[in-house]
Amino acid sequence: MRVVESVGEDVNEVTEGDTVIPTFMSECGECADCKSTRSNLCTKFPRPSIFMPRYGTSRFTDLSGEVLYHFLSVSSFTDYTVVDIAHITKIDPAIPPSRACLLSCGVSTGVGAAWRTAEVEKGSTVAIFGLGSIGLAVAEGARLCGAARIIGVDVNRDKFEIGKKFGLTDFVDPANSENNSVSEVIKEMTGGGADYCFECVGLISLVQEAYACCRKGWGKTVVLGMDKPGSQVTLPSLDIIFGKTLTGSLFGGLKPKSDIAVLINRYKDKVIYSI
Amino acid sequence: MRVVESVGEDVNEVTEGDTVIPTFMSECGECADCKSTRSNLCTKFPRPSIFMPRYGTSRFTDLSGEVLYHFLSVSSFTDYTVVDIAHITKIDPAIPPSRACLLSCGVSTGVGAAWRTAEVEKGSTVAIFGLGSIGLAVAEGARLCGAARIIGVDVNRDKFEIGKKFGLTDFVDPANSENNSVSEVIKEMTGGGADYCFECVGLISLVQEAYACCRKGWGKTVVLGMDKPGSQVTLPSLDIIFGKTLTGSLFGGLKPKSDIAVLINRYKDKVIYSI
Repeated sequence: MRVVESVGEDVNEVTEGDTVIPTFMSECGECADCKSTRSNLCTKFPRPSIFMPRYGTSRFTDLSGEVLYHFLSVSSFTDYTVVDIAHITKIDPAIPPSRACLLSCGVSTGVGAAWRTAEVEKGSTVAIFGLGSIGLAVAEGARLCGAARIIGVDVNRDKFEIGKKFGLTDFVDPANSENNSVSEVIKEMTGGGADYCFECVGLISLVQEAYACCRKGWGKTVVLGMDKPGSQVTLPSLDIIFGKTLTGSLFGGLKPKSDIAVLINRYKDKVIYSI
Repeated sequence: MRVVESVGEDVNEVTEGDTVIPTFMSECGECADCKSTRSNLCTKFPRPSIFMPRYGTSRFTDLSGEVLYHFLSVSSFTDYTVVDIAHITKIDPAIPPSRACLLSCGVSTGVGAAWRTAEVEKGSTVAIFGLGSIGLAVAEGARLCGAARIIGVDVNRDKFEIGKKFGLTDFVDPANSENNSVSEVIKEMTGGGADYCFECVGLISLVQEAYACCRKGWGKTVVLGMDKPGSQVTLPSLDIIFGKTLTGSLFGGLKPKSDIAVLINRYKDKVIYSI
């Protein structure tokens, strides 16, 4: 969360003193992706940029005048930064900064993945691989969508107690599954596989395990984690034909300016627990 | 297409003399999958069965009394066969057999893949890999869904003229693409990739090429073809995060009893060209 110190001459959307959230995802509002309800990948300002995206130059130098690059378009690890308006979302200043900051990536990514990318339906069964902040936010999103059963998978058993506050109903510890694979355990628990599986770690092996856990006919696996550059996912071709879907998203498929406002309203209405 | 010679004592859905289509896919109407709008994989009678699925026995013997197995639950290469009612769809006898028979697999699979599995939207761009009967039926389905551009990919250039009758607007010959890969050609043609890609051959390499051809943000690749048992598809993990979806179906995602009736009505209304 940031407070606007000054704005460029063509900027009308925010003004000095406004409370804003910088996001690594842009929303120009003009490109085919921004105009579509199906994508949040603004194609006018491809990410990540090491410069001001509209100009291809940096706004930062060090004491000796050397150019410093921007980081993920927002450079939010500095006290003062310069950010393109396409990466800025204005928010209600009454939202505590310790909560608002969570919406610029982690919580939005997790809640959005359940809500927008997977479109989890009421009564669904959900399995979440990795219960860090993103995995817990997926649980929150699945709970908000009305999932009936939310299974967390993590090597740290303490995460189950934390996860219950976010909607987890079940827990699987891969190290304690009596020599059965996680997919065998989850298929047994759910009578054939979960409706929705989420990979929230960034490991190819977990993407494949999550895919193995989802139900034939309509099971959908959503990838949120990012493995090493160049890494590849391998899937059994027969599972594809049997109706399993693999998809993924950045920032949970949310459009920053449009969707953060929805999450903030839900926070104000005390519907969202996690922020 | 078949004519009912006799029925078992508990069968009320068809009677002697009815015109029916046997399908390798069953529709029991009672299981979770049949009751869901999202799946056509009847779980009461898993396929393919070498016996009568309800009894686990064969109805066929050879002249010496040896058991003969059923084939894909319908054994439709014989003059007379015995088929479970879950695999039978009653149709209007006025439909010519030479047309009706196409609905028991190929045309239903292709039209259904565009209509039910992909849910191709009006104005979409579609790429079809392999212009056999299934690929041509995908073109027909995409045309019915209002696709604006339907690109066929085949090594046989003669398929373009045939394909135009089914809705093809463009053609790519992989052997004649000036050293560019098909995905490079299609991304160039479509300004970033097709909205929907269909693999209709059964080659892993083509699934991967189709996936490479589909657009970031919302591109969806649908697999209809079946490669060798045990074969695996490998995808770049970054493409998944960037919103590409991979899915597939058997029989185009259609429920035989419910959806063949819809296709037949479209044939009667002269909306469907291909049957």
